[in-house]
Amino acid sequence: MQIRTSPISSLLTPRSIALVGASDDVTRIGGRPLRYLREAGYQGAIYPVNPKHQVVQGLKSYNSILDLPESPDVAVLAVPASGTLAAVRDCAERGVKVATIFSAGFAETDESGRAIQAEIAEIAARSGLRLLGPNCLGAFNSRIGYYGTFSAILDGALIEPGPVAVVSQSGAYGSHIAHLARQRGLGISYWVTTGNESDIDVAEALRWVVEQPDVNVVMAYAEGIRDSRTFIEALEIARQRKKAIVLMKVGRSEVGAHAVSSHTAALAGSDAVFDAVFRQFGVWRAKTTAEQLDIAYACARGRYPSSNRLGIFTLSGGFGIQMADDAQEAGLDVAPMPEAAQDELKVMLPYASPRNPVDATAQALTDLPLMTRYMSTMLEKGSYDFFTGIFGAGPASPTFAGKLRDALEAASAASKNTILSLTMSAPRDIVRSYEDKGFLVHEDGTALMTALGALVHFRQSFDRRDSALPVASGKPVSFLTPSLSEHVAKRILAEIGIPFPDEILCTEGEDAGAVASRVGFPVVLKIASPDIAHKTEIGGVVVGVKDEQEARAAAAAILERAGKAQPAAKIDGILVAPMIGEGLEVIAGVARDPVFGPVVMFGLGGIFVEVLKDVTFRVAPFGVEEATRMIRDIRGRSMFDGVRGKAPTDIGPLAQLLSSLSVFAATNADTIESIDLNPIRLLEDGARPVALDALIVPRISRT
Amino acid sequence: MQIRTSPISSLLTPRSIALVGASDDVTRIGGRPLRYLREAGYQGAIYPVNPKHQVVQGLKSYNSILDLPESPDVAVLAVPASGTLAAVRDCAERGVKVATIFSAGFAETDESGRAIQAEIAEIAARSGLRLLGPNCLGAFNSRIGYYGTFSAILDGALIEPGPVAVVSQSGAYGSHIAHLARQRGLGISYWVTTGNESDIDVAEALRWVVEQPDVNVVMAYAEGIRDSRTFIEALEIARQRKKAIVLMKVGRSEVGAHAVSSHTAALAGSDAVFDAVFRQFGVWRAKTTAEQLDIAYACARGRYPSSNRLGIFTLSGGFGIQMADDAQEAGLDVAPMPEAAQDELKVMLPYASPRNPVDATAQALTDLPLMTRYMSTMLEKGSYDFFTGIFGAGPASPTFAGKLRDALEAASAASKNTILSLTMSAPRDIVRSYEDKGFLVHEDGTALMTALGALVHFRQSFDRRDSALPVASGKPVSFLTPSLSEHVAKRILAEIGIPFPDEILCTEGEDAGAVASRVGFPVVLKIASPDIAHKTEIGGVVVGVKDEQEARAAAAAILERAGKAQPAAKIDGILVAPMIGEGLEVIAGVARDPVFGPVVMFGLGGIFVEVLKDVTFRVAPFGVEEATRMIRDIRGRSMFDGVRGKAPTDIGPLAQLLSSLSVFAATNADTIESIDLNPIRLLEDGARPVALDALIVPRISRT
Repeated sequence: MQIRTSPISSLLTPRSIALVGASDDVTRIGGRPLRYLREAGYQGAIYPVNPKHQVVQGLKSYNSILDLPESPDVAVLAVPASGTLAAVRDCAERGVKVATIFSAGFAETDESGRAIQAEIAEIAARSGLRLLGPNCLGAFNSRIGYYGTFSAILDGALIEPGPVAVVSQSGAYGSHIAHLARQRGLGISYWVTTGNESDIDVAEALRWVVEQPDVNVVMAYAEGIRDSRTFIEALEIARQRKKAIVLMKVGRSEVGAHAVSSHTAALAGSDAVFDAVFRQFGVWRAKTTAEQLDIAYACARGRYPSSNRLGIFTLSGGFGIQMADDAQEAGLDVAPMPEAAQDELKVMLPYASPRNPVDATAQALTDLPLMTRYMSTMLEKGSYDFFTGIFGAGPASPTFAGKLRDALEAASAASKNTILSLTMSAPRDIVRSYEDKGFLVHEDGTALMTALGALVHFRQSFDRRDSALPVASGKPVSFLTPSLSEHVAKRILAEIGIPFPDEILCTEGEDAGAVASRVGFPVVLKIASPDIAHKTEIGGVVVGVKDEQEARAAAAAILERAGKAQPAAKIDGILVAPMIGEGLEVIAGVARDPVFGPVVMFGLGGIFVEVLKDVTFRVAPFGVEEATRMIRDIRGRSMFDGVRGKAPTDIGPLAQLLSSLSVFAATNADTIESIDLNPIRLLEDGARPVALDALIVPRISRT
Repeated sequence: MQIRTSPISSLLTPRSIALVGASDDVTRIGGRPLRYLREAGYQGAIYPVNPKHQVVQGLKSYNSILDLPESPDVAVLAVPASGTLAAVRDCAERGVKVATIFSAGFAETDESGRAIQAEIAEIAARSGLRLLGPNCLGAFNSRIGYYGTFSAILDGALIEPGPVAVVSQSGAYGSHIAHLARQRGLGISYWVTTGNESDIDVAEALRWVVEQPDVNVVMAYAEGIRDSRTFIEALEIARQRKKAIVLMKVGRSEVGAHAVSSHTAALAGSDAVFDAVFRQFGVWRAKTTAEQLDIAYACARGRYPSSNRLGIFTLSGGFGIQMADDAQEAGLDVAPMPEAAQDELKVMLPYASPRNPVDATAQALTDLPLMTRYMSTMLEKGSYDFFTGIFGAGPASPTFAGKLRDALEAASAASKNTILSLTMSAPRDIVRSYEDKGFLVHEDGTALMTALGALVHFRQSFDRRDSALPVASGKPVSFLTPSLSEHVAKRILAEIGIPFPDEILCTEGEDAGAVASRVGFPVVLKIASPDIAHKTEIGGVVVGVKDEQEARAAAAAILERAGKAQPAAKIDGILVAPMIGEGLEVIAGVARDPVFGPVVMFGLGGIFVEVLKDVTFRVAPFGVEEATRMIRDIRGRSMFDGVRGKAPTDIGPLAQLLSSLSVFAATNADTIESIDLNPIRLLEDGARPVALDALIVPRISRT
């Protein structure tokens, strides 16, 4: 095992371990890790620390960490909350690299617990000691037999190494999913639970595991994310290295979010922003624990399809229909067999339906060599990336299971590139014998289709070429005032390429009529003031102004109304804008997410945003391709395809606008609170976007 | 067992059975049913029929059905397709009540198969013989040990009787779900597979099983519905008798629908209409087979909650959050404990989170009597209809399982009315011991929440008081022409109470100016012709007409344009309508569904219908309460709550309109093809609906 230099690699590949609070009782928290380490044949040094014993579980015991003959890579602290502070001090003094703190009773409980946790974290930080926990179940690396955990799921049996890693904030969840994975025959090489995350968090653990060459898929669990930069980095590394991340993010409901805040000290960002991040970086957000496991199972082999074409083989029409429904729901293409191949199949089995789903009827079971030929033809001629056979409880019979397996194995020789899968309900050893022949085996067809759909999702995500994140660029804008008037905001945003109407600010003393004439009639007049955010409400906007005289009258009226409504407002003048042609209206904006920083929002205007809340987010910055995907996210996306007889809209310029906005937002992350471009009109002559209004709220306003 | 007089009761409660094609080989189609009947100790007469044997499986065998000593209630035909016609003839002659036909090779294969099936059906109909199948797996009634099936799932063990019934078009699906139910410990009393449905169909079988007092829940599977009237009757009987129906309807995707039509001869109605029927009559449409089973499991006890309040007990915060998320998704209310009760819990366990989810932390496990008191308090003070405890893999240990069970049982005494449930991963016998104490036990929390949500759904459905279907009433309208002009359609619909503007038809020779003056300016002028459906396209509509002179000019222009565009059109005159005030626009219509007949559609106008396809359906006729639920179905429903500062809309008058339209549609089911009311404007002064346009297409037009 190569020892890596990543800051937390010591946690997962330690050469020596101290167990503080080591116990002879193998059912106790201080006894279990020692038992597991010895059962697993861990080859590094193990140092029990317990001043009350000379020997623990047959190993020499030490009085204190300070007495150890070397500085261990990991110290596992199986001591109560009250003894933790002293133990951490000792670890820091002895030069321990990572301390794992099991005990609860810190930041998750009350004010004094928070204070002690902060003190512990500070001691560790000063000395370079890394901390896992407190209030966690520790970590393991089954490849080297290292078990720095007291998780009870290991009581019966240890975990086999394999292509799966688990990173979980919750120890209980991490244990549960590992238990389920083991039941499913999935090996787990690396397992980390982070608990209160006083130091090492889910993001850092995730970044470490996705860098391991032997990991194909990570099952992660998070209530919130502390270090969003590392988290995003981990996601992007995973994507580039083709590691699938299947993540359970809880706290999406109001009640759940309340429970999150009472349970941990995590900052739970808005759930919609989490969804956006997951979409942006190709993470699969599992809806259920069962789904998380099903998808990890399918990803464990690290094989992904080149397209979404699925061939379904069934002995019962009903099951075929149900599978086809589920396949379509999962985004798979149940493409029909070529006509000529259908004719071939028809000759072999006249009663069959050879289209796809290919229904060979129960008769196929009476002649397995025929079934083999039948399926071979399907695989050879169908050009399917996925093959699924539906077999129900039939293979539960061991004699039949063997014959069917041989028939399927023979047929599978017809296509080496097809990802083969089956649904069946059979004992684990029979299922395993099919898995060994290369078949993914699920009990439930819907679950299988969801998993295959996830393989397509990951392939598309891994293949994306616009991987390099655009960087924040240019000099940040500095703001001296807590608010900006519309024309100043527009001038700033025009510099980064946001298109606005050709407006002119008519300042005090200038003739509004003459200015309007220069703009070209008809025009719109708007009050220009950094202090008046809601211009329409105070009568500060007049539209459809047709000539110079009307313009002068309108300007006077606006100034009078503004003076009455907000006498203290600083008035820059009157903004005179040309009337803009018809077109679809959209909105874009920037907001600060407490976890992920500046995020860009996009939506269609009008009822889409007001009634349907049909908006989507991305973390800034992002490129034009991501912006294009973002635009296609919204439910009302068919508005761009041309409705009511209108021509389709080219979304390219809009995508460019969103990407530019995102780069600007990232560049000015520290100085801008929010931006609104509402509405942006997509002019019908060429879909050129024009932002009719702009609002920038500097961060200075909040300090 | 009481013998009922329902036409198919003989199929499910036969006193005597003939098995045609009876075999000594118990692995063959002709041998299995006999073996199952004998193993189950069926008490009625069993008559093997096989001319080649004198004795089959120890029973006297007969040469022919005609030779039997009595007319059996059921004849099970285990003969090839080629011998079926003759066997059915014999059954008809011998006075058999129901014949079950296993063989495939009929309407599902080709034209000649369809012809033979039709001939068989005709012979049966003439003689009063009822048919199950062909191409089915038969039926069973485990209460009386009657197994008229060759399903291989019975090879290992028969099925225990219980509160579940299965009705499935597909034999394979019916077998699979029965197998899964047995694994889950659910008993099935009645099981029917209907195959090609040459006579007995899913609807009739469903109606029979929901009338059985010992059935609490039905798991059904259908690709299409043949007899929609009986189907709806069955659903309504089920609702009134508090029998839950959990239905898998396949063929929702395009591919699936294609497979349906190639697999069976069923008429697959539009999937959206199926959804509407299920909503209307309280059926739960299962999204997956696993969900179907989970919900049937929860419904099997026939206990439903009085509200949706759920208390969650957990030892791990993370699981509690996840459960709370899932609960909210399922429509459950994770209501907080009363403050005083929270204080009580806090005293018992200072580290716990007593709000809800109630997190007692892993510490609770160290003191089970305390945990009992803790949960008792939760149950007593929380007023929860549901209680869920999250226990993971803990109870997999038999010693711990017993102690925990005792603790839970003691706590459960605190509330007799709460529906108790647990999540755990443990061997079947341990799970069973918890079920015996009254707990619903699921492995997966998401699945459990969905199931509890379904219990709330069924309770609401069972409690609906507007159960009596409004009947089609009044004399049907007879149409002599294939098309109707707008004003005629409006006159007909005005009679059933649909509100229209006060319009006047200006006929030839009348002065359009004078008529417009009587209507009151401003007015709208529209061409009135049964032959011109798209008035706007030909320039047949002029709006905003302000005086008599304008009215005359507009009328002349309209007539001229109509004459040019459609010279052959019959012109009734010009319809003069008042301009109508502002308001939200909705649409309503009637269409004929191939399965369910007239259905009413409702939606919001504009982009809601054009872009978002945000419409909903109901089968006609229905009452005002159902219409209210229908209006609330649409995604854009918040438009009625008042957006952009507008007052909320009273949807009562609109619901009345939809109900009236549905009664009219049902009354004229044979004479009307479709109706459009588009748009209907909900005037802002009181939300009075006014239909601005009306179109009726008589059925005569299609003949």
